[in-house]
Amino acid sequence: MSSAYEKLCLLSHELHLVSDTASLLGWDQEVLLPTKGIAYRAQQMSWFSGYLHERFTSDEVREWLEEAESGESGDLVVAANLREWRHEYDRATRLPGKLVQEFAEVKVHAQSAWAESRKKSDFSVFAPTLEKVISLCREHAERWGYEKNLYDALLDRFERGATVSRLDETLGNLREQLRPIVEAATSRQPFDRSKLTAFYPIDRQEAFNREVAESIGFDFEAGRIDTAVHPFCSGMAPYDTRLTTRYDEGDFLSSLFGVLHEAGHGLYEQGLNKDRRGEPAGTSVSLGVHESQSRLWENHVGRSRAFWEKWLPRAVHYFPSLSAITVDEMVAAVNEAKLSCVRVEADEVTYDLHVLLRFELEKLIFSGELAVADIPAEWNRRFEAYFGFPVPSDAMGCLQDIHWSMGIFGYFPTYSLGNLNAAHLVSAARRQSPVIAAGMDTADYSSLLDWMRKNIHEHGSVYLPDDLVTRAAGTPVSPDALIEHLRQRYLG
Amino acid sequence: MSSAYEKLCLLSHELHLVSDTASLLGWDQEVLLPTKGIAYRAQQMSWFSGYLHERFTSDEVREWLEEAESGESGDLVVAANLREWRHEYDRATRLPGKLVQEFAEVKVHAQSAWAESRKKSDFSVFAPTLEKVISLCREHAERWGYEKNLYDALLDRFERGATVSRLDETLGNLREQLRPIVEAATSRQPFDRSKLTAFYPIDRQEAFNREVAESIGFDFEAGRIDTAVHPFCSGMAPYDTRLTTRYDEGDFLSSLFGVLHEAGHGLYEQGLNKDRRGEPAGTSVSLGVHESQSRLWENHVGRSRAFWEKWLPRAVHYFPSLSAITVDEMVAAVNEAKLSCVRVEADEVTYDLHVLLRFELEKLIFSGELAVADIPAEWNRRFEAYFGFPVPSDAMGCLQDIHWSMGIFGYFPTYSLGNLNAAHLVSAARRQSPVIAAGMDTADYSSLLDWMRKNIHEHGSVYLPDDLVTRAAGTPVSPDALIEHLRQRYLG
Repeated sequence: MSSAYEKLCLLSHELHLVSDTASLLGWDQEVLLPTKGIAYRAQQMSWFSGYLHERFTSDEVREWLEEAESGESGDLVVAANLREWRHEYDRATRLPGKLVQEFAEVKVHAQSAWAESRKKSDFSVFAPTLEKVISLCREHAERWGYEKNLYDALLDRFERGATVSRLDETLGNLREQLRPIVEAATSRQPFDRSKLTAFYPIDRQEAFNREVAESIGFDFEAGRIDTAVHPFCSGMAPYDTRLTTRYDEGDFLSSLFGVLHEAGHGLYEQGLNKDRRGEPAGTSVSLGVHESQSRLWENHVGRSRAFWEKWLPRAVHYFPSLSAITVDEMVAAVNEAKLSCVRVEADEVTYDLHVLLRFELEKLIFSGELAVADIPAEWNRRFEAYFGFPVPSDAMGCLQDIHWSMGIFGYFPTYSLGNLNAAHLVSAARRQSPVIAAGMDTADYSSLLDWMRKNIHEHGSVYLPDDLVTRAAGTPVSPDALIEHLRQRYLG
Repeated sequence: MSSAYEKLCLLSHELHLVSDTASLLGWDQEVLLPTKGIAYRAQQMSWFSGYLHERFTSDEVREWLEEAESGESGDLVVAANLREWRHEYDRATRLPGKLVQEFAEVKVHAQSAWAESRKKSDFSVFAPTLEKVISLCREHAERWGYEKNLYDALLDRFERGATVSRLDETLGNLREQLRPIVEAATSRQPFDRSKLTAFYPIDRQEAFNREVAESIGFDFEAGRIDTAVHPFCSGMAPYDTRLTTRYDEGDFLSSLFGVLHEAGHGLYEQGLNKDRRGEPAGTSVSLGVHESQSRLWENHVGRSRAFWEKWLPRAVHYFPSLSAITVDEMVAAVNEAKLSCVRVEADEVTYDLHVLLRFELEKLIFSGELAVADIPAEWNRRFEAYFGFPVPSDAMGCLQDIHWSMGIFGYFPTYSLGNLNAAHLVSAARRQSPVIAAGMDTADYSSLLDWMRKNIHEHGSVYLPDDLVTRAAGTPVSPDALIEHLRQRYLG
């Protein structure tokens, strides 16, 4: 281990400590910040971006990297850290400070333009700012560089190693494979939701969610659950992972599934190797892997019959009105499938159709085949073709997601990758271990979590995402396991 | 205005932005942080101390200061900023970065040692860490320098210009002056507290407290109230002032008076000149002045008859069981005086006796006359002499306060200074303006708040604390107004 490597480690730990503080600022902004505090908070966030960028792009870092890379190291962790630092350094130094600042400023305006545009359901309000955002994303991608598609450089930001070609290969015939399942699932007798109509006090929802989260392994001495408009998970320190959810007093399932999803992210964060905190080897590897952990607990666990056999009696304890509900009914309620407009409200079966639509549009935008002005028409045309009914308004169509206003292109496909990875990993874990399979069938998930910890969490970014999943499961990810899982659940 | 001055302004604004982030870390630690997150939080706090210290003690700052000081400026604000930066710079440069960081980290660990020690009521658990904290405080004081007493250098940290001699002069015969009032007040017929025995749901306490805080002028679009074990106020950004309180479901007065006290601090923070945020001229001047604002709302307002004439009907609205209570009874309840062990639960009359005890002990500790191991015995001896009964346990004796574990020595006397200032300022405001006096007698405090804003809040640190109070009130502070106020309330 060279002394240059040690210096890089120290710097990396220090900069993580600082960026973890920025994470608290961001978390607090979503959860607690008084309304008038937003402008100053923006200045604080901007200071941190500037500081971190400046420190990490210094000549010193370049020299240390070159020196450390010139040495021989058989150590897997050392090699992985150097690989990731080099990758980050090359990408960071290719962006001039002016571009970084301009992008930060444009994004602030873009988010308010988007919010207004969605409120009025008038795409023309957002179009000029979106044009600017896309042009800046394109400039980022040009500077970062790419082999085949400009869009590849954007994908890589969220999923190391992802490219259009590889994703096309993986997701290419997902829609075709989903088609018969979607048809069968959406034509089933709908569950009579009036059976669940009741008042679910927030404090009881909180207590129930907490009991469930604790039971699946979330450590509340190293984490919390709070309330926010947009549910999310922030792993802001080695022993401080915070989930948020939102409460509907008429529907306890909304906050519960929010918590199961975010607790999945949280278990990943809590399962990272804490001795390597501050290094890539102790950091989550990609969004596609992160999302596999959330989808696992939300869908494979939370929507299973075994889960409700265990948890319905506890739910009745907190919400006595549920005593009239059977396990069968509960399972039917949480597995309803319906073709609808809005991604975030979509069920397990139709969700990927929403993602694939966005992935197609983003590819067209960055290949230059789709102009900003034409986005609504193209969205609507494709949506109707895939979903079988027209988009009622742009607010429920191409304006529904916040991502583009945040300058986030290349993110959507990781949602589907997460679904594929989740099914692929669960299927492998069950196959490898009868104890895991038996546990899942009796709502005891400790062996499943152990497997994820050993095969996914503890590796951080030591392996690239595809390698990590392939090593864990034994085979590369494909839609097969997801399709098989959905078939069993909806056609079985 | 020299360009060196402008550079200092820019730097001061930037460093405030950064230290405000550290304030969020500190607030979060008290209110939200999961238990296992403390060690990493300590590292974060330490990083910020180190960074701020390093930036502010650079040669550049010295050069800018020298250049700016060499120019002529008739501007009061410019002169005040330069005076305070120079003072801070001289103190900061006398501390090596290593000491600053070590102190920051030791303090975090000291707080958990203290908490455990208090829980077990076992001073020996805290003693070794306290020894370390005191030795580091002593090193700070030696390096900062002092004229007469080492302890002066610590006092100055919280109250610019304060020294043992000056405080002895101001507080010297306070105990003697209080004696007849304490005797009379504590021998009055005690209020029958069973009349207030009821269940006060926390959500209703929150709603009532919020209504009261809003009514006296606290801006909830630029602030919050949360729950913490130790009530405090953090003005962590120009539009982000956070109060905490704690709830007792058997006693709504506990959280209410916590909120009145902290809202007083909060009104000061919210009343600072926001255009000067990040400069001394836009920063609160001292703890003795800060505490005057909290005591004002807690004691002069919250324990007055006029206040309860207005607010008892609203309290009944939230807590119907109070409908049997008269205003006279309520006023008697909030003005009960009793010699007790714990400072934070002490009434208005006996409070300063607690403070004076701590002031005496701190003087002895830093004059070298009192060793750490002897603190419990000395505390107990003096307590019994002043209060007339023995300390039941160290948890309720020398372990009751968090301050020493936070490395805060020289802070306690500012509580009494705050009581003196509060009475002195209220008395001056009433004398100067019949509208204020009439408002206070009818529970309309808008003119009183305006007076405080104009005479105290808006000046930030433009004047030194003593000057500020003298300018506002017309005469220097003394115990006279407090003694007169207590006489009227308890002997009148």
